[in-house]
Amino acid sequence: MDIQAFADLLAEKFDLHIQKKAPYIEALTHSSYVNENRRKKLTDNERIEFLGDAVLDLQVSHYLYVHYPKMPEGDMSRLRALIVREESLSKRCVECGFDQFVRLGHGEESSGGRQRESLLCDLFESVLGAIYLDLGIDAVERLLSITIYPKIKSGYFNQRMDAKTALQEELQKHGQIKLHYDLIKEEGPAHAKEFTVAVQLNGKEIGRGKGRSKKHAEQAAALSALENHQASNNERK
Amino acid sequence: MDIQAFADLLAEKFDLHIQKKAPYIEALTHSSYVNENRRKKLTDNERIEFLGDAVLDLQVSHYLYVHYPKMPEGDMSRLRALIVREESLSKRCVECGFDQFVRLGHGEESSGGRQRESLLCDLFESVLGAIYLDLGIDAVERLLSITIYPKIKSGYFNQRMDAKTALQEELQKHGQIKLHYDLIKEEGPAHAKEFTVAVQLNGKEIGRGKGRSKKHAEQAAALSALENHQASNNERK
Repeated sequence: MDIQAFADLLAEKFDLHIQKKAPYIEALTHSSYVNENRRKKLTDNERIEFLGDAVLDLQVSHYLYVHYPKMPEGDMSRLRALIVREESLSKRCVECGFDQFVRLGHGEESSGGRQRESLLCDLFESVLGAIYLDLGIDAVERLLSITIYPKIKSGYFNQRMDAKTALQEELQKHGQIKLHYDLIKEEGPAHAKEFTVAVQLNGKEIGRGKGRSKKHAEQAAALSALENHQASNNERK
Repeated sequence: MDIQAFADLLAEKFDLHIQKKAPYIEALTHSSYVNENRRKKLTDNERIEFLGDAVLDLQVSHYLYVHYPKMPEGDMSRLRALIVREESLSKRCVECGFDQFVRLGHGEESSGGRQRESLLCDLFESVLGAIYLDLGIDAVERLLSITIYPKIKSGYFNQRMDAKTALQEELQKHGQIKLHYDLIKEEGPAHAKEFTVAVQLNGKEIGRGKGRSKKHAEQAAALSALENHQASNNERK
């Protein structure tokens, strides 16, 4: 791994100047590489990704809180889920060029791991975790203000907020389809009801979600079906 | 609401000196109060709770990352879930005395809302959100270093890390029981398998969880059953 080239990339693209190398080395080391090099006693990027995931969630939450002062909590939550979903973050990862630097095992490399959405999404979050540890929250904010916030501002994600419509459109690409939303469960006391809804495509369940109202649960089920659909598309690639 | 008394409490207990009142007024206003006072055009604490939840997740994640340098990501994730669960945060909320200051609607008040776990948990996160907005992340860190980190350090949560054992012990309080763990689903490619396990008590499903291994999925199922059990206990109270 050429950590100096990675440092140059961060400096050039984001004006970020790394101080410690260790967090970035951790972030750029996939578990498949560690497994194939057990004697080196390396650390893979799963722990630092856990941290980066939380950093990203907070920064996006804060952005939404400030820029959408009238948006209800449920909508903020769905909008954030769209922004930080695998498909979206894996694209940001490639745009940033981080995919060129991750160390993979041979098996992972030859099976196309370097293009796999889940790996790229995790990698993006790992690098955020490293920047947070090395340079602090303001440095993370700078990267996000270049890579993610403009996309939010453009309305790209808002248009996708209606997951039921998005799911219908996505599945119709392959011909006429019929979606059916089923109320599965209704539980909790009157002031804090929770609804569970399943969405079926031609009688087969393709997603399930919960919410405080039937409408919210339907949207959550549709979002889950969308994610399942995209994940399985991704595996076929 | 006596916001000055609340400011005094933060100053006395945590040496935190509030600068703006608005975030705290938002944090201390429950939706039931807003619903009963529609003409006042108030904002309830759901949006600021969304933010506080993310702040808490990040700070706890960072604490675990630093203090448990050898802990695998899956264990960090389970430990964090134990630390930020409703039952735990509602207790911290009462210890801090925040429950005395929240504005509730009459219906909520008379039905015991001020003692309800989910309300108290949300309130704790809302106040964290307000502190974060008003005084920044270091102020949140100060509150957590007094209320939550000592509890982590004491090993209180680690002892509960084995959710299967904890579930067995909890349910046995009511007599001999037999738990059964069922593998429901196994999906994904070899390098990224996901297992789904359901846990049954006398043939009835009481929890379900996912994980990268059967063992992890069983722990997740047990944790979910524990949470369901405590939530229903709580409703009966």
